[in-house]
Amino acid sequence: MRLQKLASLMKEKNFDGAVISPGTNLYYLTGLKIHEAGERLTVLVVSADGNYHLLAPGLYENVVRNFPVTFWRDGENPYHKLAWILAELELSSGRLLIEDTMRADWLINIIKLGRFELHPLSSVVRELRTRKDRHEIEMMKHAAKAADRIFDEILSWDLLGMRERELALKIELAVRELSDGISFEPIVASGENAANPHHEPGERRLRKGDMVILDYGARWRGYCSDITRTIAIGRPSEKLVEIYEVVKEAQENAYRAVREGTKAKEVDRAAREAIARAGYGEYFTHRTGHGLGLDVHEEPYIGPDGETILENGMTFTIEPGIYIPSLGGVRIEDDVVVLDGKGKRLTRADRELVFL
Amino acid sequence: MRLQKLASLMKEKNFDGAVISPGTNLYYLTGLKIHEAGERLTVLVVSADGNYHLLAPGLYENVVRNFPVTFWRDGENPYHKLAWILAELELSSGRLLIEDTMRADWLINIIKLGRFELHPLSSVVRELRTRKDRHEIEMMKHAAKAADRIFDEILSWDLLGMRERELALKIELAVRELSDGISFEPIVASGENAANPHHEPGERRLRKGDMVILDYGARWRGYCSDITRTIAIGRPSEKLVEIYEVVKEAQENAYRAVREGTKAKEVDRAAREAIARAGYGEYFTHRTGHGLGLDVHEEPYIGPDGETILENGMTFTIEPGIYIPSLGGVRIEDDVVVLDGKGKRLTRADRELVFL
Repeated sequence: MRLQKLASLMKEKNFDGAVISPGTNLYYLTGLKIHEAGERLTVLVVSADGNYHLLAPGLYENVVRNFPVTFWRDGENPYHKLAWILAELELSSGRLLIEDTMRADWLINIIKLGRFELHPLSSVVRELRTRKDRHEIEMMKHAAKAADRIFDEILSWDLLGMRERELALKIELAVRELSDGISFEPIVASGENAANPHHEPGERRLRKGDMVILDYGARWRGYCSDITRTIAIGRPSEKLVEIYEVVKEAQENAYRAVREGTKAKEVDRAAREAIARAGYGEYFTHRTGHGLGLDVHEEPYIGPDGETILENGMTFTIEPGIYIPSLGGVRIEDDVVVLDGKGKRLTRADRELVFL
Repeated sequence: MRLQKLASLMKEKNFDGAVISPGTNLYYLTGLKIHEAGERLTVLVVSADGNYHLLAPGLYENVVRNFPVTFWRDGENPYHKLAWILAELELSSGRLLIEDTMRADWLINIIKLGRFELHPLSSVVRELRTRKDRHEIEMMKHAAKAADRIFDEILSWDLLGMRERELALKIELAVRELSDGISFEPIVASGENAANPHHEPGERRLRKGDMVILDYGARWRGYCSDITRTIAIGRPSEKLVEIYEVVKEAQENAYRAVREGTKAKEVDRAAREAIARAGYGEYFTHRTGHGLGLDVHEEPYIGPDGETILENGMTFTIEPGIYIPSLGGVRIEDDVVVLDGKGKRLTRADRELVFL
């Protein structure tokens, strides 16, 4: 069980315990679906001995079953109960892991309950989460397949004249129809807007000669996909078509560089070199990719300083791009898993340039 | 300027400074639109002397203008820069306010930069934010008006046979069309599902004899509305119709109890007594209301233990309800502002029971 794995790792690294608020780590470790706690204190306490206990507000009484738990009611001070749980698990002092995303006001109160040396939980849980097991990879395949199907759907729509914002909404609705929901707000960046990798979809209408970047993802049972395709409306300038081919080659090279035992930065380098060779090095302004799983951004990061050694079960994006101010941009992104020593694409929508 | 007001309040209450991460407090105090920082350290440091300085990742260079700011780049350690800012503002020790929702991993690093006594920022900013100024009330009126208009729209839809989930999505799209977006995921609870005040819209189809609770809200320039109406499909049981009238009266009584100088709990009592008198006291299982503004839940809370003394400019919901297991439920909610000493409804959609 994953909580026991966490406990062993804590012991190995000399941590005494962990205090974990709701989020993807709590879900990963326990399977409990406690989505959003708001301001009401909800924490799982785990000791390096492998004992654990959840503290939750009463409104979760129907959600949490077959799990060691104490509920607290409005009007009670939950930190008194937390002090008791910490004492029971012999955690009134020591080296404590704290969920990275925990609210500061909770942490301010927890600090007062003992003498602790605090460290972020991710530094330990990361080691468990980066290597996905078979079940997790199945969920990710499902999320990726939804993204692929939606790309085919998009190609059947009448895009000419549509506003970026409308198209982003249509994509969102299609994702919600086919999956548990979006993994992030879809990006639609057309024409010169595509030169900004962080563009927010706006009022601009798609017109002939545009390259349009579409970046979206679906969620399945908590796991994310994240795909980018760039399509042409009518006939874009020759330069943009040339750039498309450069990005496609860079993406393919990076994909082929994925190997068990290779460092993340080697994958980044494969993409970066292909783009530099074609003379566009300065226009590739971001990392080649990021880990993907329960979070849409997680370890391992695929950048020039990526020291992570790739292992079977790791899942990440490969998404080089070229962005030329006031002209436009191209990005192609797939989700990849390391399997049997090499990379395997999870997203498989067509990567040839489509002219609509 | 609001940052100067915060500084005066800090001085008055013996705080030395504040470290504020992105969220509604940062927006309220500065007007800066820094939506979501992810893991990249972004904090405003304010001293009780009225000095302030922002630390932000480079990607905000085009967003933050005419504001004292230091940017940091990927690869740099932002906490070195933060230490420098804290030293410049003479905040290397002392009583420090911390934004309540700051990520714990940031706070763990900040603690190491000095000798601090930590307190949640909300304990001070709350005093500024609960009393809305004229501009804020205008924004809230706008958000409320959008909610009203959408209710009229809903009544024109063909609801019989529609799934809760479909209806929730249609409401969401209508809100997005008329405003800056939803203030929370719409709730649609029909028939026996309406007996659960936290129901998530599901696959159940609306049918004759249902009471249906619709709870949704819009956002305008950051400010929220939050409305609930309960409608009848066909002819519900007499008991449900009777309950509707009880809730309507309770809501009206609570509304009339709103007065400058009254305690929040008096408003709660007015609703609670009307429901208890009709014999349904045990089925009104939540607070009468909550403050509303940049956050959809904020001070003042209108519950049995609400000691806040109401003042002009305060905005909150009044939303009594009755929930009877396996039968159904009714809730009616309006947004209210205290103006010229008494309550004024911001949402004004029809409160008479509509039979569709």
